[in-house]
This record gives sequence, structure tokens and C-alpha cells, in this order.
Amino acid sequence: MTFAATVLTLYPEMFPGPLGVSLAGRALCEGIWSLETVQIRDFATDKHRSVDDTPAGGGAGMVMRADVLASAVDDVLARRPDAPMLAMSPRGRPLDQALVRELAAGPGISILCGRFEGIDERLFEARPIIPVSIGDYILSGGETAAIVLLDACIRLLPGVMGAPSSGTDESFEAGLLEYPHYTRPQIWEGRTIPEVLRSGDHAKIAAWRSERAVDDTRLRRPDLIERHGGARRPPPSGARRDT
Amino acid sequence: MTFAATVLTLYPEMFPGPLGVSLAGRALCEGIWSLETVQIRDFATDKHRSVDDTPAGGGAGMVMRADVLASAVDDVLARRPDAPMLAMSPRGRPLDQALVRELAAGPGISILCGRFEGIDERLFEARPIIPVSIGDYILSGGETAAIVLLDACIRLLPGVMGAPSSGTDESFEAGLLEYPHYTRPQIWEGRTIPEVLRSGDHAKIAAWRSERAVDDTRLRRPDLIERHGGARRPPPSGARRDT
Repeated sequence: MTFAATVLTLYPEMFPGPLGVSLAGRALCEGIWSLETVQIRDFATDKHRSVDDTPAGGGAGMVMRADVLASAVDDVLARRPDAPMLAMSPRGRPLDQALVRELAAGPGISILCGRFEGIDERLFEARPIIPVSIGDYILSGGETAAIVLLDACIRLLPGVMGAPSSGTDESFEAGLLEYPHYTRPQIWEGRTIPEVLRSGDHAKIAAWRSERAVDDTRLRRPDLIERHGGARRPPPSGARRDT
Repeated sequence: MTFAATVLTLYPEMFPGPLGVSLAGRALCEGIWSLETVQIRDFATDKHRSVDDTPAGGGAGMVMRADVLASAVDDVLARRPDAPMLAMSPRGRPLDQALVRELAAGPGISILCGRFEGIDERLFEARPIIPVSIGDYILSGGETAAIVLLDACIRLLPGVMGAPSSGTDESFEAGLLEYPHYTRPQIWEGRTIPEVLRSGDHAKIAAWRSERAVDDTRLRRPDLIERHGGARRPPPSGARRDT
């Protein structure tokens, strides 16, 4: 089944952009996912085709109008009632790998891309839209965030990644950062690959990787440890949680 | 002065991508920022031009080689010694608006984009590379993350945004989410713009926005409140921290 992505934007020419290349690009060609862009401006009703207006109460920038956006959103919801409607917004629910997995397991997603200062808040009260944030920083619009969200989802679709286990044994899958990687050459600039990784002892290797994942997370991202309730260890690689 | 972006990637054709359009695209044309892509594969030394190898200790996927990446990184560091060298990695320092501001205030950035399972860890021990993560999810490569990072920086460069205050009165700038926005029509589907925003009383409007920013952050992102040490209120809009 094709994962259907619909993007509501003022800049349809930004898509597929980087998603037309490499892994996502091949998957698009193969019909594993599909992409439709909807030009928000096509739903404007005045002769200037305006989609924004000055902020109520004053302030810099422009705000996207609830009435115009609602027309665009309604059009997409009518055609794709099964796909959740997201809006990329710094005020949204933080994106994490669990949400990515949930979205990738569904029939597709519709994504509203905001621009300017933001979107009239009444739209979120009146329509079933889930605001999602990819991180605590400000972008020029929702488009680059939508590309990131789609990239994260697409790589999890069946048939996209070479080895099916690649998706389940990595950062955040167990609430931890991933362990560090090494590859040949064995010695590089006098630095050797950790001895245990060359031992051939799979149990010892799995234990070392678990330990490094916990240690590195404690050191770099204590907030992850806290959020996931202590130093849970990832499942050993022989017992991957394939979902 | 031009903000110089150098991207080390296996997919230079992904750039500028969405950064060639709209705000960032105009700024690129105007020379406010510049973009150079470096094909990592050009630094491979064997006849197959290989940049990756199987992970030491076993496991799925491939790992990018430290020796090949170091040659590419050294080439860029020699030519652009003043620009920090970042690597997009889920194991990296979380990107936030403070880091974006710091980077945008500098002469430019060089960004190494990882692919496959990751990068040989020895590269990070041997070279002055700052791993940066745009969020707690996994992408197919560093490229879409690099586009997000550049988008966040570019909009802050002098001359890119219309109103200079647009950059300083929004989400995360005070450790809080931004207050909600409203614009015309005054009444939409029976929903009205909050009375205070139509009062013309600037002090009351500023107070309402402060309160909503704090309330919405408490409700949606208590982690932000905690991280920033309690419910600091954003500076009133008359006293913006222009940096």
C-alpha cells in the first residue's frame, strides 16, 4: 500500500526537493510513497489571492488567515479522511521516533506548512489538526520541517531500507542514544577499533554496545534517561523489537 | 559579509533544494549567504571510490570510514579554518535557538552529512567536529537535517527578514513557546479574536501575550520551563533583546 503524503504549502516547488534523491527518491519512483502538493493560495478568495494579514494586537510580520487555511485543509480532509492532518509549528508536540513510527505505520500524512509569524490560532480549535514541532528552533517556514518529518517516516516504510533490522537498533529506539560505530581500517592515525568489537564474541559485543549506549546517553543526554525512567538497557541485538 | 555554508555530502544534488526558494533562495541570489557542496566520494582512494565498510563487531548497515571522511574534512578545514565544522548526528548536541543564533552570528558553517548507520567514532576523536542533532528521531542521512539547520541560520542573517524584530519575539527566544496569533477576519465560524487584542491597549496586550506564552509552555512543554529555571516571562515587546 502506498504511503500518501499531502503537503499544503505556499511553496510547492520545494517538493520533493531532497526527497526526490537517494533512498526516498527511489521509493517515490517505486510507488512506496506518493507525494501531492496543495497550493494554499489557490484557496484565497479575494482578487489579490491573499493568505495572510497583520497580527491582531500589533507586532511584526504577518499571520496566516484561518478562513483561507480552513478551505485548503477541508479540501484535503475530504479527499484523504484517513490520513492525520499535521501542522509543522514550534508550538507543537515534539517529534520523536515513537511518533515517527506511529505515523509511518498509517496510510499516510497530510502536512500543513506555516509561514510568516504563524497561523491564526482559531484554525487549531476548529479543525482536527495536530501541531508538531521538529525541534526548539525557528525555521523560515514549515516546509523544511515537513521534509524532515517525511524523510523520517519514509525510511521506515516496508521495502525502503536494505536490511529490515536497520530501523530497530539505533538511536532513540530504546530511549537511548545509539552506541558508537567503527569500521575498517583497523588502525587509523594510531587509533584502533575497540578490542571487544574484534573478538567475535557476540554476547560480549552486545553487552559492550548496551553499556556504551547507556554511558553515552548519561553523559550527553541525561534528559533522555530521565524521560524514559532510568537507565533502561536496549534489548540485545538478538532480540530486536521488530514492529 | 557573506555567510559561507559548506556541505560535505554524498548527495550534493540535494542542495540548495528548498533553500533555493523563497527567503533563503533570495538571500542566496543576493550573496547574503553562499553555498558550496563537497562530494565526499571524491576523497575515496580505492578504485571503487568506497566511502563505507561493514561495522566492526557486526550488525546491519554500513559505517562511513574515518580515513575518507578525514580527508574531506581536512580539505574543508584548510580552506575555511574560521567556520565551525559540524556533523549532523542523532548522538549530537541538541540544536536549539541559542545555538542557531551563535552560528548565524559567525562567518559561516561547514556541515558533514552522515549516511548509512553512522560515522566511524574515531573521526570525532581526531578532528574538531561538533556533532549536532536537530531532534530525537532518525533520518535517512544528515542532508535534510543540514537543510533545516541552514534554514534556521539564514533567516537570522542581516537583510534576510523584512522586519528586524521578527527574529527576536518568537518561540524559544525567552525559553518559552510563543503566544498564539490571530488575524482578520474578526469573527470566523463564530469564533472571535480575543477581546484584549482589539483593545488598542499596548500594555495590556503585552501582558496577555506574556501570560499566554507562559501558560501554553506550562501546558505543552513543561520541560522547557524546567530547563530554563521556572516561569521566566519574556521581556515586554518594548524591551526586546536585539542581539
